[in-house]
Amino acid sequence: MNKARASMEHLYRVFTAPEGRESKLAQIEQHLSANLADFLSRHVVASNTSLEDIEHHFADFTVPEEPQFVSDHAEILLEKLVANSVNTYSPQFIGHMTSALPYFHLPLAKLLVGLNQNLVKIETSKAFTPLERQVLGMIHQLVYGHNEHFYRAHLHSANYSLGAFCSGGTIANISALWVARNQALPPKGSFRGVSQSGLHAALKHYGYEDMVILTSKRGHYSLSKAADVLGLGRHNLITLPCPDQTLDPQLALQKGLELQQQGIKVLAIVGIAGTTETGHIDPLDELADVAQQLGCHFHVDAAWGGATLFSQKYRSLLKGIERADSVTLDAHKQMYVPMGAGMVLFKDANASNAVRHHAEYILREGSKDLGASTLEGSRNGMAMMLYASMHIFGRQGYQLLIDQSIEKAHYFADLISQQPDFELITKPTLCLLTYRVRPDFIKEVLSRFPDKRDEINQLLDNLTVAVQKRQREAGKSFVSRTRLATGKYHQQVVTVFRVVLANPLTTAEHLNDILHEQLHIARQTQSWTRLQNLANQLTTSV
Amino acid sequence: MNKARASMEHLYRVFTAPEGRESKLAQIEQHLSANLADFLSRHVVASNTSLEDIEHHFADFTVPEEPQFVSDHAEILLEKLVANSVNTYSPQFIGHMTSALPYFHLPLAKLLVGLNQNLVKIETSKAFTPLERQVLGMIHQLVYGHNEHFYRAHLHSANYSLGAFCSGGTIANISALWVARNQALPPKGSFRGVSQSGLHAALKHYGYEDMVILTSKRGHYSLSKAADVLGLGRHNLITLPCPDQTLDPQLALQKGLELQQQGIKVLAIVGIAGTTETGHIDPLDELADVAQQLGCHFHVDAAWGGATLFSQKYRSLLKGIERADSVTLDAHKQMYVPMGAGMVLFKDANASNAVRHHAEYILREGSKDLGASTLEGSRNGMAMMLYASMHIFGRQGYQLLIDQSIEKAHYFADLISQQPDFELITKPTLCLLTYRVRPDFIKEVLSRFPDKRDEINQLLDNLTVAVQKRQREAGKSFVSRTRLATGKYHQQVVTVFRVVLANPLTTAEHLNDILHEQLHIARQTQSWTRLQNLANQLTTSV
Repeated sequence: MNKARASMEHLYRVFTAPEGRESKLAQIEQHLSANLADFLSRHVVASNTSLEDIEHHFADFTVPEEPQFVSDHAEILLEKLVANSVNTYSPQFIGHMTSALPYFHLPLAKLLVGLNQNLVKIETSKAFTPLERQVLGMIHQLVYGHNEHFYRAHLHSANYSLGAFCSGGTIANISALWVARNQALPPKGSFRGVSQSGLHAALKHYGYEDMVILTSKRGHYSLSKAADVLGLGRHNLITLPCPDQTLDPQLALQKGLELQQQGIKVLAIVGIAGTTETGHIDPLDELADVAQQLGCHFHVDAAWGGATLFSQKYRSLLKGIERADSVTLDAHKQMYVPMGAGMVLFKDANASNAVRHHAEYILREGSKDLGASTLEGSRNGMAMMLYASMHIFGRQGYQLLIDQSIEKAHYFADLISQQPDFELITKPTLCLLTYRVRPDFIKEVLSRFPDKRDEINQLLDNLTVAVQKRQREAGKSFVSRTRLATGKYHQQVVTVFRVVLANPLTTAEHLNDILHEQLHIARQTQSWTRLQNLANQLTTSV
Repeated sequence: MNKARASMEHLYRVFTAPEGRESKLAQIEQHLSANLADFLSRHVVASNTSLEDIEHHFADFTVPEEPQFVSDHAEILLEKLVANSVNTYSPQFIGHMTSALPYFHLPLAKLLVGLNQNLVKIETSKAFTPLERQVLGMIHQLVYGHNEHFYRAHLHSANYSLGAFCSGGTIANISALWVARNQALPPKGSFRGVSQSGLHAALKHYGYEDMVILTSKRGHYSLSKAADVLGLGRHNLITLPCPDQTLDPQLALQKGLELQQQGIKVLAIVGIAGTTETGHIDPLDELADVAQQLGCHFHVDAAWGGATLFSQKYRSLLKGIERADSVTLDAHKQMYVPMGAGMVLFKDANASNAVRHHAEYILREGSKDLGASTLEGSRNGMAMMLYASMHIFGRQGYQLLIDQSIEKAHYFADLISQQPDFELITKPTLCLLTYRVRPDFIKEVLSRFPDKRDEINQLLDNLTVAVQKRQREAGKSFVSRTRLATGKYHQQVVTVFRVVLANPLTTAEHLNDILHEQLHIARQTQSWTRLQNLANQLTTSV
């Protein structure tokens, strides 16, 4: 390896001249652009390399003293980083919400970096600011469907913003609840409100004992983070039981009234449109009624499910979302945009003024700088990715994508139900479902010996864990796993495979293969043998 | 324009096949890659197009119904978006902290999107997680210089994290103060701490009247946001006067003791290493003493100045930063990484456990998932950009970049001082400085007629605003402006040009040109004429 020298000439060249077409980095790029699937399947060595082994490649904790040639470094990136990455583009990678992306995002990513705009202020994002406002308007209209007059009045107004782009659903949820908190404890008379005077003074001023947020046990962990960050405390995120994976409005109402009687302010009810674990949707319309009855903010976390609104066939699943005071959506999930495209939207264009702030050198009063009412400061122009996607797919294209995902999930659920050695745990509402290996020989035993249920389920849990791990390590397919309380087993918590069928490249054949592989692995495990022994023992002893 | 059809075949192609080499998008990409400066100078129509005119291009608020061909859309992006963007790569764009980036980030941005990893959890970022931990370790070592044993024990440990990557300095500052708040109000006996029980209960439990953060008036506006979000209230961010642009340790100590006597808890002192407006650095070592005396958290916001640590020549400017409990740095500033690479670091590897959280399907206890102690959830692999930069530049390369920026700022400050019609307002500590047009004929008048000082400074303010706007609209050069209290005029607030000299492509000639253009514009303004009249009037009347 030649040695690079740290000189201004060398640096100047790095800033002004691209690598030659024959250079390693250019080769990587060409391969990526020409055939991403091939690039990944050649370079990502999906393997059982342990994490500890990978860590050895990343063990140095000192900044390298001397410079390196770009091409030498590109070689290292390939060997150390790409080789040990996860092939999220693969149609057999159906374990998480990260999937294949359309090709046009590759050159667009480059354009984004080439333009390097900063959306915190107009002066560094002249056209990107109006573009982002337009994109927020489009999604706002998709969710709320306000009339033309509303959008004409607010879309590009310096005094309003319909929401904010942010790095992801977590920041969106925090932003929504931040706005809700500041609106619930506003300035009044000589009191300057929670935003200025803090939560302690505000609760005292308004005479509240405490402040809580209601959601179901399936609420995303970011809600607990939000409760912590915003000063409410994680304990004040009340997560109600949801035996059927969705929040019971009556239970929420009852709990809310009970808390109110204790002098506790219910800040918000959070409904979920597409839970992370099973893809269920809370009864949003009824929860909107409950929020109204309790006089609290209604937030909908539609980070996953929001894109369903593109589908005329399935959008009714989210009925009531248009009554939410705020909504979280992630374009990097079912809108197939690269990571980093979260959004929060507010029904009322005035809402985000509850967190508005100014500074001298930017965000001057009356400016249209987007940074004046966002939690984040400097931000890149990710809105362009969604802008391009909405134009290239169109609503119709997104509808096709959403519909085929949901229908694929129904197909897979049917397929699982037909297998004697598998058990469907949660049916798909959107394109998520959960299931487990449950050998046919144990099925009857499980229902015949209720006092053995815990023991059997424990063995089945071990089996599921073992299969999930080995399948992941084999590197061909990936499903994730989680633990769920299920009505079927009297709310016993069981371990399940979790599948997200958002990758449009996943076919029925892939799904068949995945089940075959799982069964094949399962039969070789100790847990399988133990279950067999237990079944034999129980049925013989009877 | 042909019409695209929404069909699964069409969509499948968008996910599996790149645009042809002759397509518009491919052409854009080739041009970008071959010569970024040329691409931008041809397509960015730096112009006086008004924001309102641009907004007309982005006025539609409905999701387009029908799909569009990628190439048709690429054409639209060029015409509407790129044409009206800001050329931040240009060496004459010296008004903000956004500058030219090295070329290798263009293909790397593509690789990042192609890999589409999600760093919230190992399962979707197998190699990126260790890489990010390594990068955090390198920067940690740069700041704190702990010994080898420390890094070997903590770098890849599931029980610790040395900090977090995040979208930017704002999230980093909030994260740091979140940790500080939770550490200051910890669980104790049966009390479960602020994280679980909330700020209201915690302040009561610990018997504090209130909780405040101390910083100077030059503290970034994100600190005020942090005070709001975290429930302290913006009013409880105490911003102390700083006539010389830096925080006086004695003043901080005095204020802190005074507050403590009132039963108010001083949560943290925030020192700034590179203020956004003038690039000044607080006396960090002395502030560390004060924090120690007050028994509070010491946070350093080094979003801008942190990269100075790469320079052996200038790193002593930040002496004392190694005593900070937490530090914010932005790699997308002086480390020349694309937007979205903020970091927070903690001296104590255990600190971030004050905000640790778990969830069933990810972030299981004992896992190395980075998401367990970050404010954000899903995140992309931006750490790769800094990893590559640190290897390709090396510490030596970064030192050259930092040194030449600072030295260029000194050169420019001298140049301004030599011009009879300009006035240097703040000298550079790092590569920022502020100045204004102050015609020679008014200089003497300004000192001779103290009772006219306000009036003259008001006219000079108008002059600076007019020149800054017209220069920006002319589209050749861009400096920003802000308002500063300056000791020279008895703390009167004056409007100044603000210059950030981070772009390595900016030459002495560019700087000369910028001054010439400003003077040329200034002479044509009404303010110039009014100042002339006033000067004549005053000197004649004497």
